[in-house]
Amino acid sequence: MSEQPDLIYGVHPVMEALKNPKRKFYSLKASKNAADRLAGEIAAAGLTPEIVHPRDLDRQLGSDTVHQGLLLAAKALAQPRLDQIEKSGVVVLLDQVTDPHNVGAILRTCAAFNVTALVATARHSPEGSGVLFKSASGAYEHVPYVKVTNLARAMNELKEYGFHILGLDSEATALIGEAARTPPLAIVLGAEGKGLRQLTRDTCDEFVRLDLDGPIKSLNVSNACAVALYALTR
Amino acid sequence: MSEQPDLIYGVHPVMEALKNPKRKFYSLKASKNAADRLAGEIAAAGLTPEIVHPRDLDRQLGSDTVHQGLLLAAKALAQPRLDQIEKSGVVVLLDQVTDPHNVGAILRTCAAFNVTALVATARHSPEGSGVLFKSASGAYEHVPYVKVTNLARAMNELKEYGFHILGLDSEATALIGEAARTPPLAIVLGAEGKGLRQLTRDTCDEFVRLDLDGPIKSLNVSNACAVALYALTR
Repeated sequence: MSEQPDLIYGVHPVMEALKNPKRKFYSLKASKNAADRLAGEIAAAGLTPEIVHPRDLDRQLGSDTVHQGLLLAAKALAQPRLDQIEKSGVVVLLDQVTDPHNVGAILRTCAAFNVTALVATARHSPEGSGVLFKSASGAYEHVPYVKVTNLARAMNELKEYGFHILGLDSEATALIGEAARTPPLAIVLGAEGKGLRQLTRDTCDEFVRLDLDGPIKSLNVSNACAVALYALTR
Repeated sequence: MSEQPDLIYGVHPVMEALKNPKRKFYSLKASKNAADRLAGEIAAAGLTPEIVHPRDLDRQLGSDTVHQGLLLAAKALAQPRLDQIEKSGVVVLLDQVTDPHNVGAILRTCAAFNVTALVATARHSPEGSGVLFKSASGAYEHVPYVKVTNLARAMNELKEYGFHILGLDSEATALIGEAARTPPLAIVLGAEGKGLRQLTRDTCDEFVRLDLDGPIKSLNVSNACAVALYALTR
């Protein structure tokens, strides 16, 4: 195979991957305890785990990695193209958000709010990685993660499908709670510090901000995404 | 001095600390670029930076640390006791949330939503640390961070001050958007996986959940806190 496998660790990420019928598995290393804990899911996936000592996974993944005694190697998940997603609900777009912890937390939040897809640029976005899978806590198995070459072109394509595109911008005059909220909707979030790029801005239909009245006026990007999704789906 | 100094790195944390009139500073290491960038704040704080190469900070802090050319040593910030906080607005309580990245992001969100104080147990909560200060992005200088010996006792004390105490619990029947929202209010969040301890639960006035309808029913604790604060302050 030419493609790198997905290396997935941690209880929730591995459990959700094992339950994903679209997944093809290569191997599973598990501590005795972890193998017992997920015995049902492992059997249902048709896997026989290689029982290892947790220290073996520490050595392989680094001792800071919260692997919880589980390391699954699986074929990389095929992701849809933009024209293959459902043309309904809420889509989240990321303009060069690079930190896999943040993108993982955003995937998790997208899964919780039943988001249609997460769209990011092929460059300047994290690949599927152990850190991203772990931060997503299993949500990587549920939310289509669409990589596009050009974000502005993807936004125009979404407009053709009827999506109304909101840009989240702390300088906007409109509050997100007052924005048009009839799906299909898309919301674009920029990287912290850098915000939305000019071409991204030029392609938004409307700008909205979160209503923050404290001494610090910005949130971590995953927290901003969570608040935005709550506000848009009320 | 007997107490450890706060070691603060990164542009936002250092800038907000320099602007905090309650801070006493010991020393500042800065790259030439960073010292130029914060020249006004550094001068106003009465400090003369030791100009260092970014690699020196890499060596001191570890190469994964996003110090952005700044390392400030300051006297640990004195934090109020629970009876010294304002008896108004919204207070956030954490029941053994241990990860400094999460607690830092929560402090930042608390600052954005003008929260009165963040309350955590003295044990099983992170100390002020570089990671926490960085994740808080300067918010550590703005939000009182109250450590208490016993969380249930602190909750009872808040009740005496007139606070209505909500527990966030994914099993609750009431949605947070429907909860009593007249301040003074307090909301208690538990650690992921473990949730609220029994004595914490027994001391809540009411339980609420976030309205999540997707395939993953939980958020990262800092994202849950952000959504809860948005919902409670609308």
